[in-house]
Amino acid sequence: MVSPGFACDPSPMSTNDDAKTAGGVDAGRPPRLPLTPDPAAAEGLQRILDGRWADVRERVRGFLDDPFFLPEPGLPLDEAREWLIPRLRRMAEFGLQRGSFSVAHGGTGDTGGSLTAMEMMGHANLAVMVKSGVQWGLWGGVVDALGTGRHSAYVRDIMDLKLLGSFGMTELGHGSDVQNVETTAIYDRETKEFVVNSPTPASAKAYIGNAAAHGRMVAVFAQLHTPDASGDPGESHGVHCVLVPFRDDEGNPMPGVTITDHGIKGGLVQIDNGTIRFDHVRVPRENLLNRFAEVSEDGAYSSPIDSPNRRFFTMLGTLIRGRISVGAAAGAATRSSLTIAVRYAMRRRQFEGVPGHEKTLMEHRTHRLRLLVPLARSYALALLQNRIIERLHEQEKLIAAGEWDVANPTEEQQWKQREMESRAAAVKVAATAHATATIQECREACGGAGYMAENLLTVHKADSDVFTTFEGDNTVLLQLVGKELITAYARDMSGLDPLAMLRYGVDNVGDVLWRRTSVAATVQTLVDSVTDRDEESLFHAGYQVKLFRDREQNLLKSLVRRLRGAKKMEIADAVAAVDGAQDHLIACAWARIDSLLLEAMVEEEAAMAADDPALPVFNQLRNLFALSTIATHSGWYQEQNILGRLRTKAARAAVNDLVDSLGPWAGVLVDAFAVPRALVDVPMLSETPGVDGN
Amino acid sequence: MVSPGFACDPSPMSTNDDAKTAGGVDAGRPPRLPLTPDPAAAEGLQRILDGRWADVRERVRGFLDDPFFLPEPGLPLDEAREWLIPRLRRMAEFGLQRGSFSVAHGGTGDTGGSLTAMEMMGHANLAVMVKSGVQWGLWGGVVDALGTGRHSAYVRDIMDLKLLGSFGMTELGHGSDVQNVETTAIYDRETKEFVVNSPTPASAKAYIGNAAAHGRMVAVFAQLHTPDASGDPGESHGVHCVLVPFRDDEGNPMPGVTITDHGIKGGLVQIDNGTIRFDHVRVPRENLLNRFAEVSEDGAYSSPIDSPNRRFFTMLGTLIRGRISVGAAAGAATRSSLTIAVRYAMRRRQFEGVPGHEKTLMEHRTHRLRLLVPLARSYALALLQNRIIERLHEQEKLIAAGEWDVANPTEEQQWKQREMESRAAAVKVAATAHATATIQECREACGGAGYMAENLLTVHKADSDVFTTFEGDNTVLLQLVGKELITAYARDMSGLDPLAMLRYGVDNVGDVLWRRTSVAATVQTLVDSVTDRDEESLFHAGYQVKLFRDREQNLLKSLVRRLRGAKKMEIADAVAAVDGAQDHLIACAWARIDSLLLEAMVEEEAAMAADDPALPVFNQLRNLFALSTIATHSGWYQEQNILGRLRTKAARAAVNDLVDSLGPWAGVLVDAFAVPRALVDVPMLSETPGVDGN
Repeated sequence: MVSPGFACDPSPMSTNDDAKTAGGVDAGRPPRLPLTPDPAAAEGLQRILDGRWADVRERVRGFLDDPFFLPEPGLPLDEAREWLIPRLRRMAEFGLQRGSFSVAHGGTGDTGGSLTAMEMMGHANLAVMVKSGVQWGLWGGVVDALGTGRHSAYVRDIMDLKLLGSFGMTELGHGSDVQNVETTAIYDRETKEFVVNSPTPASAKAYIGNAAAHGRMVAVFAQLHTPDASGDPGESHGVHCVLVPFRDDEGNPMPGVTITDHGIKGGLVQIDNGTIRFDHVRVPRENLLNRFAEVSEDGAYSSPIDSPNRRFFTMLGTLIRGRISVGAAAGAATRSSLTIAVRYAMRRRQFEGVPGHEKTLMEHRTHRLRLLVPLARSYALALLQNRIIERLHEQEKLIAAGEWDVANPTEEQQWKQREMESRAAAVKVAATAHATATIQECREACGGAGYMAENLLTVHKADSDVFTTFEGDNTVLLQLVGKELITAYARDMSGLDPLAMLRYGVDNVGDVLWRRTSVAATVQTLVDSVTDRDEESLFHAGYQVKLFRDREQNLLKSLVRRLRGAKKMEIADAVAAVDGAQDHLIACAWARIDSLLLEAMVEEEAAMAADDPALPVFNQLRNLFALSTIATHSGWYQEQNILGRLRTKAARAAVNDLVDSLGPWAGVLVDAFAVPRALVDVPMLSETPGVDGN
Repeated sequence: MVSPGFACDPSPMSTNDDAKTAGGVDAGRPPRLPLTPDPAAAEGLQRILDGRWADVRERVRGFLDDPFFLPEPGLPLDEAREWLIPRLRRMAEFGLQRGSFSVAHGGTGDTGGSLTAMEMMGHANLAVMVKSGVQWGLWGGVVDALGTGRHSAYVRDIMDLKLLGSFGMTELGHGSDVQNVETTAIYDRETKEFVVNSPTPASAKAYIGNAAAHGRMVAVFAQLHTPDASGDPGESHGVHCVLVPFRDDEGNPMPGVTITDHGIKGGLVQIDNGTIRFDHVRVPRENLLNRFAEVSEDGAYSSPIDSPNRRFFTMLGTLIRGRISVGAAAGAATRSSLTIAVRYAMRRRQFEGVPGHEKTLMEHRTHRLRLLVPLARSYALALLQNRIIERLHEQEKLIAAGEWDVANPTEEQQWKQREMESRAAAVKVAATAHATATIQECREACGGAGYMAENLLTVHKADSDVFTTFEGDNTVLLQLVGKELITAYARDMSGLDPLAMLRYGVDNVGDVLWRRTSVAATVQTLVDSVTDRDEESLFHAGYQVKLFRDREQNLLKSLVRRLRGAKKMEIADAVAAVDGAQDHLIACAWARIDSLLLEAMVEEEAAMAADDPALPVFNQLRNLFALSTIATHSGWYQEQNILGRLRTKAARAAVNDLVDSLGPWAGVLVDAFAVPRALVDVPMLSETPGVDGN
């Protein structure tokens, strides 16, 4: 549905009369695109979207252009699960998994290339992507990242699919709150073993991929205890990771292990999720993944990282790739879905407009709004996704080159790491929330045909659905993003304790914030060129960035003001204050996300050649993204006296004009996604007669 | 996700300072509810929700409180389809289907009771509801409504499940646009038969329930032709309905019939949807459902309704029950889902607040917003749904009593029928769009557990998903609602042609509109008590109704202004003008829907006894619905100068206060839905330790 809050009267830009009264809003308004699209624009747009690892994308496109990878809904559960194995084998033969692993463990360490390849898998089949993500990203990834030389043999077997395994982090009682998992790993000096135990029903490892059928070994996140002289297990050293074989070669549970099968889920039915419980299961001391912590034979605990808190986040930080690839794959599945829905809308005719000429769906205004507004956001997301992958790639290069010691980072590196994690969380939230909303919209936009599984939209919807709550629940991640905004601000106020420094006042938060974050010079130049706002064109890129920043900054300022007193309160009152501001914190995070998205688009646009045939189209996509976002928040902009009512009305009217202009180009816009043909060649497209009767 | 556009800063009502400056906004502000809920309130709320057919609800609750009806996801396709038959048999034994059929055909004609019973089926299993809806509502319903005495035997066999059949309206090329279906039924004088034919691939009947497996006979909607003396088939008399046996007793297609199977869908996999094509299939003349049109043996066409257009809509109008029951069942599935998600949120703990005390999910502000705002709307929808059922029931009673001749209604009856259809469309759209959004929210609010099919949320989501696009695509229905608003207005301007009268000016549209529609006297009294707006409390029910009406009226006025010139234009320009206003038309329709919802709540509240323990709770639900809707449209209200920025901020802050007040009562609010225990007793509720450790 077009959101009831969005489509609204009136549309003054259609006549241009009212709009003229809203300041210089019309200056810089892009001319309507020609009715006949230029296919050359698709190439230019694709180049932008493909980004730095364009060659990887092309290779994977060739690999994926094969019905072999297409979802086959309706298989019985066991068959569906087995169906995935040959797909993973083919990926392994192609070498798709090797970039995920460090050179030390036999991989190629090509972070950027391997994340890009995982993203591309999302075009095809999210179950294949998740299965490979469980095996190579999570299970393999944790052994690679937290293990040492003594675990290298495991890594090789994991790469070659000789050792399928599981990532045992989430517990029934603790999902996103990993620091408080209840599973214990207590060292037994006598036998030189860890005793792994699930003390309560809620401590069962839950929703674990590869648990119900294929996994043999699991990386268990547990509270680590080393008994003192009297044998008392003492305090936990915090959450650590221990390898536990949980199924024998015949597929039966190991002694002391109880496995249950989650069975059918809302999607990803091929993934064999289950729970695993441990009843005092013993594993050798060497099974501790010991890169950041070691327990000696006599039970002495040591770690290169002193602070338990930092140790915990260092271990978790190495797993950032999972979060990034989930967002990336969700974005790819969304682009596949948009490709299908847009192509259908360009063919399907319904209801007469001019007598004798039934209009295509895409010729209807509401249809343009429901597909093209999310499509513009998909462009922004793809560009932002490319940036986060590139950034992680560069960071991993520094680490591999020994210029960044993960166990002992410089203070600057710690801040960079935090910002990276916050950025990854932001992109993951943005991409997965967008996927859920947009794929649903695509399905509805195709009516009854959209509900048929063979047309893939319901499959992508069901499979991507869990992405909003796994690898970090979006609501939790949004709070992480919001808190990082406050903390980063606090840091720039000279490193004081965040809450303490709040008392110093917050009036300069904006300036500080923008000095800190890495804004592209081209974007900043555009922002600096903004003149008196009441005169500024709504289509001015720099002005749009400023409006987005206003939202972020004002929300942050008022949030900080609200929380300023919390430090002095009783704990219960402070908790109530923070809880009372939770929706505010989340609004901050969304504002931050929207800023990141717009700046990615503006930066890209500024780098395009003036004669690039893609430029006028991309310009309208950027305007569509910016102005539709402003229209969505028109209430807030007016409440804050940042935009007057004529300007918010003009923004909404411009959205209508832009979708009308882009409507005939919709095919080009999805061609630029360059989804392999076999993956979007659904029956409803050939069953529906085309515009030319074909 | 909490919509990025909704949660926003600041929350001044928490401190009450800023809010005081926003006029008398605080007057009439309801006091915060006690922290310990009163179970007696649940009874009072249930009484309101149960409405006139409370006894039917209680009977069906007993019938449904049985795991027998629970969805069993994961069955192989054939088994899943067969699984439905015993469920339908049990319904038939219970007599649930009889109310749908007229006394003349052996039913009981209890429209209200039977629609209420169908609604209750939505609590349990939408596949059972849809299968019974296909068999008794659509297939049985069309034979009952458009057939005559010569079809009575069919009706009896349909009720008893001896004759399973299909409703052959939708075509691949024409979904919502029934008037333009391509299938033909041409009378052959020689053999006294109709020749039913699908002339093009796009004319195949598509997405037809009971087609792929169980159906034996189909009611085909086709263009009816009666050849003239020369044998030329001539012009179509319009769409009529003809019974065509399409599968023999062994289940094989009849000669000339081609059946395909749609196979797996995004939900409702148990329903055997398929396509049916006819290659000059012959059926006896008597197979025409001849209540509103007859073809004599010698091929003479006659109808008690002269206008082909009115004839078409009369035939379709008799099928209004399907649309109403789809909305009703979607509402019930939503209430089941909210029951599950709210109960989970009251038990599930995550993240520490006060040390040593992990908060329940429901204690988090964002969680309250994401569940309680839609819950309040669910209350409004349930009440509005009761009203439309009651209204149809009364109308059918008049028809049965001979006081309303469907073939020759009075002018007033024609208008009432139109308004009924528009109202049914509005309720269907409101309920199904709400179901899609809310069940999705429920699933996400339960994290990983919400994704497990055994916890039913993904099942309800997948099954209800198609409700937004079948029985009338929501986007199409919204336009119908919007057009009816214009037409009704035109009628009150003394019956002129709608477009012609637009020239007369539109300034009094509001007054006219409200004189016409049947607003409860209690509601109008409240509206009339509104004082100077700037002084009025945001919590005043009459003021809220006025604000909702303002949205509806202003949108309608400006729409009419935009379309005023269309009549004088060239057809292509007029089409462009109407298309350019499509989003505006839809915004009107949503405003109308919101008005209907609020008025249903206000009317109900006004009728409650002052000492009803449910009153303070219901009052807060009404305020929550009203103020969250106003906050959603805060941009529009400010653009129109109807609300100042302090007041829209105050509305948003009040929403936060209201969900905080209602949070501890959430359990009571879903208890009042009284969903049979067996239907919401999902594993995650017993796996999660409760507040008291149970």
